[in-house]
Parts: sequence; structure tokens; C-alpha cells
Amino acid sequence: MPNPLLRAIRRSPLLWLLVFVPVVFAGKKLAPGAHTLLFLLSVLAIVPLAALLSHATESVAAKTGDSVGGLLNATLGNLTELVIALAALRAGQYTLVKASVAGAIVTNTLFVLGASFLLGGLKHRVQEFNRAGARFQAALLFLATIALLVPSAIAEADRAPGAAFTQKLSLGLAVLLVVTYGLGMLFSLKTHRELFGSAEHAEAGEAPWPLGLALGTLAGVTVVVALVSEVFVESVHEAAVAFGMTPAFVGFIVVTLVGGAAEMGSAFSGARKNRLDLSVGIALGSAAQIALFVAPVLVLLSYVMGPAPMSLEFWPGAVLMMLIATLTVTLVTNGGRSAWFVGVLLLMVYLIFAMTLYLLPPQVP
Amino acid sequence: MPNPLLRAIRRSPLLWLLVFVPVVFAGKKLAPGAHTLLFLLSVLAIVPLAALLSHATESVAAKTGDSVGGLLNATLGNLTELVIALAALRAGQYTLVKASVAGAIVTNTLFVLGASFLLGGLKHRVQEFNRAGARFQAALLFLATIALLVPSAIAEADRAPGAAFTQKLSLGLAVLLVVTYGLGMLFSLKTHRELFGSAEHAEAGEAPWPLGLALGTLAGVTVVVALVSEVFVESVHEAAVAFGMTPAFVGFIVVTLVGGAAEMGSAFSGARKNRLDLSVGIALGSAAQIALFVAPVLVLLSYVMGPAPMSLEFWPGAVLMMLIATLTVTLVTNGGRSAWFVGVLLLMVYLIFAMTLYLLPPQVP
Amino acid sequence: MPNPLLRAIRRSPLLWLLVFVPVVFAGKKLAPGAHTLLFLLSVLAIVPLAALLSHATESVAAKTGDSVGGLLNATLGNLTELVIALAALRAGQYTLVKASVAGAIVTNTLFVLGASFLLGGLKHRVQEFNRAGARFQAALLFLATIALLVPSAIAEADRAPGAAFTQKLSLGLAVLLVVTYGLGMLFSLKTHRELFGSAEHAEAGEAPWPLGLALGTLAGVTVVVALVSEVFVESVHEAAVAFGMTPAFVGFIVVTLVGGAAEMGSAFSGARKNRLDLSVGIALGSAAQIALFVAPVLVLLSYVMGPAPMSLEFWPGAVLMMLIATLTVTLVTNGGRSAWFVGVLLLMVYLIFAMTLYLLPPQVP
Repeated sequence: MPNPLLRAIRRSPLLWLLVFVPVVFAGKKLAPGAHTLLFLLSVLAIVPLAALLSHATESVAAKTGDSVGGLLNATLGNLTELVIALAALRAGQYTLVKASVAGAIVTNTLFVLGASFLLGGLKHRVQEFNRAGARFQAALLFLATIALLVPSAIAEADRAPGAAFTQKLSLGLAVLLVVTYGLGMLFSLKTHRELFGSAEHAEAGEAPWPLGLALGTLAGVTVVVALVSEVFVESVHEAAVAFGMTPAFVGFIVVTLVGGAAEMGSAFSGARKNRLDLSVGIALGSAAQIALFVAPVLVLLSYVMGPAPMSLEFWPGAVLMMLIATLTVTLVTNGGRSAWFVGVLLLMVYLIFAMTLYLLPPQVP
Repeated sequence: MPNPLLRAIRRSPLLWLLVFVPVVFAGKKLAPGAHTLLFLLSVLAIVPLAALLSHATESVAAKTGDSVGGLLNATLGNLTELVIALAALRAGQYTLVKASVAGAIVTNTLFVLGASFLLGGLKHRVQEFNRAGARFQAALLFLATIALLVPSAIAEADRAPGAAFTQKLSLGLAVLLVVTYGLGMLFSLKTHRELFGSAEHAEAGEAPWPLGLALGTLAGVTVVVALVSEVFVESVHEAAVAFGMTPAFVGFIVVTLVGGAAEMGSAFSGARKNRLDLSVGIALGSAAQIALFVAPVLVLLSYVMGPAPMSLEFWPGAVLMMLIATLTVTLVTNGGRSAWFVGVLLLMVYLIFAMTLYLLPPQVP
Repeated sequence: MPNPLLRAIRRSPLLWLLVFVPVVFAGKKLAPGAHTLLFLLSVLAIVPLAALLSHATESVAAKTGDSVGGLLNATLGNLTELVIALAALRAGQYTLVKASVAGAIVTNTLFVLGASFLLGGLKHRVQEFNRAGARFQAALLFLATIALLVPSAIAEADRAPGAAFTQKLSLGLAVLLVVTYGLGMLFSLKTHRELFGSAEHAEAGEAPWPLGLALGTLAGVTVVVALVSEVFVESVHEAAVAFGMTPAFVGFIVVTLVGGAAEMGSAFSGARKNRLDLSVGIALGSAAQIALFVAPVLVLLSYVMGPAPMSLEFWPGAVLMMLIATLTVTLVTNGGRSAWFVGVLLLMVYLIFAMTLYLLPPQVP
């Protein structure tokens, strides 16, 4: 019965990295102070776990019919990022939580989409994709960016009207975002689903797992990811210092790449196969989900799990980057066509941000 | 002869509120210190007066031919808002004047347009509207937002180069805006009018009044609105405190809703009847008119009527909201199509702003 | 053999201004302190020299085949602006250099494009142009604006993380911009050239010069422009004070008009002849070239030629103007159609900026 799981592991070299899962726990026991080593090991362990989680979610979704399946994908699609962020939340590392939220939005809209356009464009002269889908996700992202912009802008413009105001506002915004996300799913999965064409998410050719196996994997792997994430969160700060990277850089770029590696692979291979709708759906869908679902859920959960309530007030530079990323993607996906240079443009914007974060003196953010 | 007026009053339950007009004046005489009561009474009195003014303007416009009528609608379409703002101007309440200008722009573009899209979309699957008209109004709004942004941005960026500079700049900007508005009317009503299709503004089915009655109503009701507005302006501040609302919230949201209630009704019923051009025309037309005509006229009149010249420098938060509203509406109306979720998105942006203003500590703006 | 040069001079009244070239050098010798006079003379001398340079560049381009010719036009098309900026760079006047870069972007996108739309629209009811070309240039500009925005935004948001950070970041951004510009040329001149249609740059009807004459003119005139630019740069500051203009105004507006007068003439006459692709190509092409090629080359050359390395950190007002100009032009060129009022809108935005800069107290920028 566990054949499909074993077969998946045998076929995909990415899953061989699962061997690092026990290594992380052993390392944590034997050398709890070797932060840089533990950081690297936990990164290597999370990548294949995220791939397993993603495949399990899609298998459950494939078995449960389109509407329930769409709902599942739309809520559990970024489960790894959510679990990592929860570990950071419990540890009270709110800067890391926020950097990883902002980073996921920026990385998905600029890096994943840009690399998909570039890789696809190097093989195919001009590629087309479903405009309606791209515009819907871009509009959701635009709304979320406005919501994340307001607390920071008010704090800037009016010289800090006080933390109580920011906290009340964040709570209200979190509720609005989750409600909008819910209505957006109703719109795209139910009332106007035919506008969005073939939003197939699962890699064609791979058979879905049986429901029992998929559910079991989902539950089991989530627990393992949670445990590894704790090691990751504990070690990330000191590892960043050791590598000469700022915490903003690590949160922004490393966390997203680690949690989303498997999905990025699907986006890139979709673009090479001229199935750009798949790539655009993964890139913008992930970004929108993190902005409108993961981020507000983290705010709400911070009341229960965190040492103190978390606000939606971001560091101004992060707000600016999210705003530029959203505006860029809105303008770029407007026409529904792409060529390699469009990918270059998106990647250049990403490089500008990455370079700025890398060069920024560590004490700033 | 006064039959059509009486008939209009008998038919429309909204106009029954006219009974509050004498009540306001009586209240003002008997209890000049009951600010909260006077505030509520004046709100109830202005709503039907605004509806009468709007119907009278349209009747005059219908009688005078398309070009003159268009001109009349384009200059007197927001007469109520202008009269209320003039009362505030005379009283030197420049914060209220500016909040009501910014609020009218934000409320019309986000709330009126969003609710029209939502109400229309709940009845009709996908609705289409004239892109040329929407883009024209959005472009006018975009220009006005830039003009309103510059004085605040310069003041922010360069640490206040002095009030004299801001005042000279505001005067120049006011002249530029009025000139642009005039050229825009020339373009849309004269040289390229066929691009804008059926920009019918009057509610179909309602016969226009005879010219004499319409002109008489226009003159008489304007005077009454001016008198009631004075009570409104005097009482608004203390009423806001009594209701626990900030003055920014009142200016931004209450003034617009009060002055535009009748027009909003037309916009919503147009959307339900699948005549979305009417709704878009009312929402964006009102916003553009207030930004490019009412606001600069108020600046120019402040030299004659106000205790001191009024500038176009807005509170940074207001500028940000106008900017976001304009950008949102530009992106949303670009395609010329709408469904219910587009309305939800616009309303959510409006809710974000309303919530922020409501929660803001009173001393800030 | 020098017939074509003499013929060009005889035909074009603009070139009669060449008589001011010796006058400038004489004036510099005889009255080195007459700054206002020298400023005016150098302006009158640069205008015809820029026209000669522009014609020589196009003649070389016409002789060398499409790809090399396109490359030449794309790198030497703003040679005059580059030479003037180099003179300012050597003199250490970095504020003037930056103002002229920002001014070239704003003036080309708003004034040249706006006046072309207006002049063309007064003769032709609705004009069409190649959307792909306009969107490509607008996208390049958008990227450049982001790159120029980041150093200023970080400096604002995080209270100056230090000049060393800004300098390292500027160097990295300069390299990214030049690389993007190179890839953009590869895209538009080589891999996807057929998307961009007839991007003919030379005025039809004028025969190109023989190669020897063109190369000789290119070399000789560049040297003369360099010499006159030195007089210009030395005198500009005191002349600005004498005219009651701020240095920001002079750098922003005068330098661009002087260096680009000849090209503007081509853009305007193209619009009148209903060849709007030519006008859009000149306006947006120049702006993109200055933003992605001239500006970063100046940063790189400042390490060799300037008294100290120059950064890409602009005065916040300049960044805002570049951002608004780029956004405006992106929205306006999106549809690929134009009428006279579109030109009015662009010119109004330009007027708003010009008025603000003119009124700004001199000490500010």
C-alpha cells in the first residue's frame, strides 16, 4: 500500500533529501550550538518535506472533487510556509514572520513568474496565458498590498498614533482580508469559474495517491515540518550573521525559496512545456494566498499562540517592495502575452530588491 | 403650475424628508446648543434638498440642448457639495472643506462605483460599460490627484518650504485644474463626443420639469441648502465628538453621503437595470467634477469669502487615499467589464479606509 | 565633398545658429565674468551643434545596416546630453548632472510626447501608434524608475544607512541598468524585432551623408560641444540666479530643451504628418536611453573622471516626478491610440511640475 509514496521517492531525486530529516534531529541532540550547520541541515530537510506536502495536498484535492479540491489547494497550498511562520510566531520572532510574508509575495510575483517567463520564452517565441486568471490574482494582491500599506503609512505620516491603534487596525484588516479571500474563492471556484479556464494545479502524468495515504502523509509530514521548522527558526539568526547576511535578506529570500522549492519546480517545468497558465497560477496564486490568507491567519493566531499580538505594520522598505512588485505584475500580466524579455524585466526588479537587502547594514530592519 | 414639483414630492418617499427643513430652523431658534440634534436634523433636511437640486439641474439641462445641458450638468452636478463646502469655507473650517473634497473623491470612486458593480453583478452575470468614458474620467481624476499630491509631497520631502510657496503653488494648480476641466468638457461634449456614447444622466421615465419651475427650484433650493448647511457646519464638530467619531471620518464619509444620497440612488438603480454606463458616469463624473472644478473653485473663492486663502495642501493620509482610489479605479475600469467580485474589491478598499479613519485617534488629522 | 554639410546648413535655418559657436569662445576670452551673457550664447550654440550631431549619428547608422545602426542610434542618440553631463561631472556639479538626467526623463515623456499628441491631434482626429514599441519603452522606463527610487527610498525610510551603502548600491544598480539596456536592444533589434514595426528614426526625404563626412562631423562636433558645454556649465549657476530661476528648474528643464531641440523638432513634425510611431519612438526612446544608459554610464565614469564617485540617490521630489511621469506614460500609451486631449493631459502634468520647480525657494534642492 505505501507503494506510491516509495515510488515517488525513488523517482524524484529531490525526495532523496529526506535523508536529512533524521540527520537534523540527530544534529540537534548532539551539537545544539552548531547553528550554521543546523541551519543548513534544516534547509536541506524542509525542501523535500515541502515537496511531499504539496503532492499530498494535490492528491487529496484530486480525490475530493473540484470545489472542495480547489478550496483545499487554496488553503493548504502554502502549508509549509504557514508551519514555518507558526514556529517563528511561537518563538516571538515577528520580524522573521513579517519578512517571510513580504518575501513570499515579492519572490513569487517577481522571481517565480519572471524565471517562468524567461525559461518559457527561451524555448517558445511568444507565449499566451489566461488574462482573466492573472488579473484576478493580481487584483487580490493589489488589495492586500493596500491593506498592508495603510498601517505603515499612517504610522509614518502621523508620527505613530500608538500601538493600540495599530493593533486594532491590524485585527480589522486581517478579518477583511480573510473575508475577501473567501469571497474570491466563491467567485473563482463557484459563481464565475468558467472565466478562469483550466486552472489545473497538479503535474500531469503523476497519478494522485490513494486518499488514505495522502491524508496520512499530510498529517504526518506537517508534524515533521513543524519540528524541523523549530530548529530552522532557532538557528536562522546566528547562521545569517555567520554568512554575513542581514536577517531581512534571510527572511525575505531564503525562507521563501526553502518553503516553495517544489512548487517553483512545477512552475518552471510548466513554462518550458508552454503551459504558462500553470506557472502564472502557481506564482500569483501563492502570492495572493500568503497575502490574503496566511498573513491574516498569523495575525489572528498571534493572539492565541504568540507571546504578544502581532500587527500588520511592516517595515516601510518591505511595503514599498510589495507595492512595486504588485504594480509591476499588474502591468506585465495585463496583456496576457509574454516573451523572454518580460521575464528579464521581472527578474531585474527582483535583483534590485535582493541586492538592496543584501547590502543593507544589518542593524537597519 | 407647481404640479410637477408636488407630484415629484408625492411619488418619492425621499422627498418627504423635506419636512425636516422647517424643523431644523425651528430647532436652531429654540435649542441653539443642542449640536447633536441639530446635526442629525440638518442631515435629514439636506438629503431631500440635494435630490431636488439634482432633479432641477437635470430638468434645466434637458431643456437647453445637449451642449449647454452637458455644461450645466458638469458644473452644477455637485451643487449641494459646493454649497456645504462654501458654508464651511466662510466659517474658516478648512479641514472640513478639504476632508469633504477628499472624501467625495474616495467615496464616489470606491463606494458608489463598488456598490453599483456589486448590486448590478448580483443580478447580471457580466456587465459591460463604455470604456472610453470611464478612461476619460479616470484620466481626469489621475491628473487632479497628481495636482493635489504635489504640494503635500513637496512639504513632506523638503521640510516645509513655507506657507507663501504653498499658497502660490495652490493658486497656480487651481487655475490649471479648472482650465483642464474646461478643455475636457470641450473634448467630451464637443470635438469627440461620439466616443462617449450615451452619457444620459437623467433617470429615464421621469419627465423633466418646465423650465420656469426648474430654474425657480434651482435658485430657491440653493438658498435653503445654504441656510441648512450653516447649521450643519456649526454642529458637525461637536456632534462628531458626541458620536465618538473623528472629524476626518465625518468630513470624509458623512458629508459625501449626505450631499450625494440622491445621485447614489440613481447610480444603484442604473446598475440594477444593467445600464452600467449611467452608474459609472455618475460615480466617476462626480469625483472628477469635485476634484477638477469644485476644489479649485473653493481655493479661488477662499480669497474672496474665507478668513484667509485656502491652499491645496492635504493631510498626507488623504492624499494617499485619493491616490490609491484613483489608481484602483484606473486599473478596474480598464477592461470595460465588471462582475460582482469587482464591486467587492472596490468596497473592501473603501472599508479599509473607513475603518482606518474611524479608528484614528481624534487629535491626529 | 563637404557639399552635403554646407547644403544642410543652407537649408535649415536652425543651423545658422552655428555662428554663435565662435561668438561663445570669443565671449569667454573677452568677458569671462559675464555669466548671464555666456549662458545665453552657449545655449544658442549648443542647439545647432546638437542638430548636427543627431544628423551625423543617423547618417552613420543608415550606412552601417540595421543592427549596427540601431545599436549606434541607441547609444549615441543622446550624445549631446551625455557630453553636457560629462562637463558637469568633471566640474563636480552632481546636482546639475542628476537634475538633467531626471529632467530629460520627465521632459521627454511628458512634454515631447504630450506636445506631439496635441499637435498631431489638432490635425488628425484620432491617431494610432505601435503599442508594442510604446509598451517596451515604457517598461524599460518603469524598471529604471524603480532602480532610481530604491536608494532614495531606503535613505528616507531608514534615516540614512550611510554613504558607503548608497555608493555600493548605486554601482550595482548602474551595472544592472546597463545590462538590462543591452538585453533590451538584443530583444528589440534582434530576437523580436518584427514586433516593433517601422522604427525609422531619420527624417524621410533627407539623404544621409557619405560615411567619411558623417564620421568626421561626429568626431569634430563632439569636441566642439564638449568645449561649449564647459562654458555652459560654468555659467549656468549664476545665470539661473540672475533670471530668478532655481538651479533645479534650470537643470530639469533648460538643459533638456537645449540638448534635445533638434530631436523634438523631428518628433513634432512626425506627429503632424500622422507618423506618430516616429514621435513616440523619439520621446520614449530618448527617455529610456537616458535612464538606462546615460545615467549609469555617468555613475561609472564618475569613478574615473569626477572628483568623487557619484551615487544614484536623487532628491525625493525628482524621484516622485520620474515615477509619476513613467506611470502616466504607461497608462496613456497602453491603448495605442491618441487624440488632442491626451496631449493636453500630459502637458498639464508637465506644467504642474514646471510650476512647482519654478516656485520652489532656491535653497531647497
